[in-house]
Amino acid sequence: MNEIAHLLPFVLNPDNIARYEDGVVVIGDRRRYPLAQEFVRCEDVESVARAIEQMVTQGSGPWQAAACGLALAGRQAARLEPAAAWAHMVQAQQRLVATRPTNTALARRLELAMGAVRLALAEEGSGVGVETAVLHWLHNTRAQIYGDYLTRARHATKLINDGDGILTMCFAEAAFILTLALAHQEGKRIHVYVPETRPYLQGAKLTAPSIHELGIPVTLIGDNMGAALMAQGKIQKYFTAADLITLDGHVVNKVGTFQHAIAANYHRIPYFAFAWGFDPNRPDRASIDIEERDPNEIKQFAGIPTTNPAIDAYYPAFDITPPHLVAGIITKQGVVSPYDLHQVKSG
Amino acid sequence: MNEIAHLLPFVLNPDNIARYEDGVVVIGDRRRYPLAQEFVRCEDVESVARAIEQMVTQGSGPWQAAACGLALAGRQAARLEPAAAWAHMVQAQQRLVATRPTNTALARRLELAMGAVRLALAEEGSGVGVETAVLHWLHNTRAQIYGDYLTRARHATKLINDGDGILTMCFAEAAFILTLALAHQEGKRIHVYVPETRPYLQGAKLTAPSIHELGIPVTLIGDNMGAALMAQGKIQKYFTAADLITLDGHVVNKVGTFQHAIAANYHRIPYFAFAWGFDPNRPDRASIDIEERDPNEIKQFAGIPTTNPAIDAYYPAFDITPPHLVAGIITKQGVVSPYDLHQVKSG
Repeated sequence: MNEIAHLLPFVLNPDNIARYEDGVVVIGDRRRYPLAQEFVRCEDVESVARAIEQMVTQGSGPWQAAACGLALAGRQAARLEPAAAWAHMVQAQQRLVATRPTNTALARRLELAMGAVRLALAEEGSGVGVETAVLHWLHNTRAQIYGDYLTRARHATKLINDGDGILTMCFAEAAFILTLALAHQEGKRIHVYVPETRPYLQGAKLTAPSIHELGIPVTLIGDNMGAALMAQGKIQKYFTAADLITLDGHVVNKVGTFQHAIAANYHRIPYFAFAWGFDPNRPDRASIDIEERDPNEIKQFAGIPTTNPAIDAYYPAFDITPPHLVAGIITKQGVVSPYDLHQVKSG
Repeated sequence: MNEIAHLLPFVLNPDNIARYEDGVVVIGDRRRYPLAQEFVRCEDVESVARAIEQMVTQGSGPWQAAACGLALAGRQAARLEPAAAWAHMVQAQQRLVATRPTNTALARRLELAMGAVRLALAEEGSGVGVETAVLHWLHNTRAQIYGDYLTRARHATKLINDGDGILTMCFAEAAFILTLALAHQEGKRIHVYVPETRPYLQGAKLTAPSIHELGIPVTLIGDNMGAALMAQGKIQKYFTAADLITLDGHVVNKVGTFQHAIAANYHRIPYFAFAWGFDPNRPDRASIDIEERDPNEIKQFAGIPTTNPAIDAYYPAFDITPPHLVAGIITKQGVVSPYDLHQVKSG
């Protein structure tokens, strides 16, 4: 963490995502960011769970806030016998996992944290070491994750040339932001174009402010402008995150990613997606269910209606970009072809 | 007008755009529509000019409101000698044209209305007939324009098949809405998908409510979703208006049109643009200047900031779709190839 902390903007610094302060969980409130940098303070597991449910944090935030919540439960378990302490922790785990039933990363990570809890209970013969064990696990997990971000960013930075205009979509988190920070540090002059990303405006709220904070030139655009900028010669590279990549190279990401990928291909602009890992249960396009979110989000902005409330709307949260539109997948092992992911599926 | 009045939704009915009521100009207020159906009443030319400047009306509204303003000036000119009446009318014309310096349609139409004024002054030897002459000119001009809309709509309706899903962009005005109304009247089952069209939300505010009012199934989507819907098989045709079409077949329209046209071509979906007329001064792409609007529009939503105010934004109002992505241009003469517009340039 130490080697990259100075390259991370406010919203990606782990301490600003969720931190544990001696019995209090402090969660960065993304709901009003960047117009305000506020935190929600939670003194019990139920408050942490409610904050997650109320969308105080997003992206990689929920599992980190939940892990801090588990540490809080661990403090309460300190005076309990192993069996009672375990039952107390399981109850906290279940409440925290229930906050986001479709977020499998949250459930998977808390399951790993519970492994550390089980070990501490066995070693101490009581709940006294649980709080520390959870915090230790969280620290190590974060260090590994940010290390992986940095590894992928180092591969991606090599794809960027001096003078490049770069298009992205939504909020591609630390791997992308670190890529830009490294390119900037190397003296490459870059300019990043960020679509606002309706309806939640992650581009306007998270991506553009993060890049601006690093001192890198950034311009906010509408979701309808990417191709127009490509035609003007403003874009040389297109980078996004991926919520999921199938083993046969289909990139699932925030809706709008596909539309820009088609336009990039039309303009001979390469598209690169950051891969986190590969899910062996997702071999191909047919294995993907696209989540449809509340259509009312499309009919309003910040609670203000934009149309006649009687009108139907549709909000598919993600789209699917086929491998022939993808120039490369950025993995820990390097930038690989979307047609050759089996070799890196463990990455 | 009478034969199509029942096919026009509220916002496209000329009486709801701008009307002249015995010395008062009544302008439909599009700023809060469709959340409210309100009108601004103006009792002098200056009030009409200010209403136009304050964006009370848009699209084809400004010239109609300005023409009503000219009728109002004509009433005041009734007691004047021809020379004084003419000077009074020229002053009103100049004030009204100055409301939208880049709207050449407004200037061109008021110039034609002034021809009717000149004739009335010559015939009567005084300003007594000017008010009526302007209103008569407005009535005839509207009748001709709506007749032309209907002619093009009849051509376009033949392009629509039973069961079609139709994508559009922004607000394609009466030619498109009449096309849908005619197809619906013929019993064709259609479903229209309307991108909200940031930053002004013409799709959410004007297009979707107009189609809904006609009883045609309509779904509002984000500007980032068109390609995703095409991949799902929901779209069979793509129709837009055109602010301008060059003689060599480039379609200039609201930004986002081009992005969808590329995606439509990728999915083998035909794209048709409604042509109004052809400007002999626009032979090709190089003859087009794309208007860049206030970038602050991209950084806010209904006046609420969406990002750090220090961040740059960019708002090109239009984009350019090349002829190889255009399946046909809908003219008064029929649906023609974008490569063969010289034959219809007078249309």
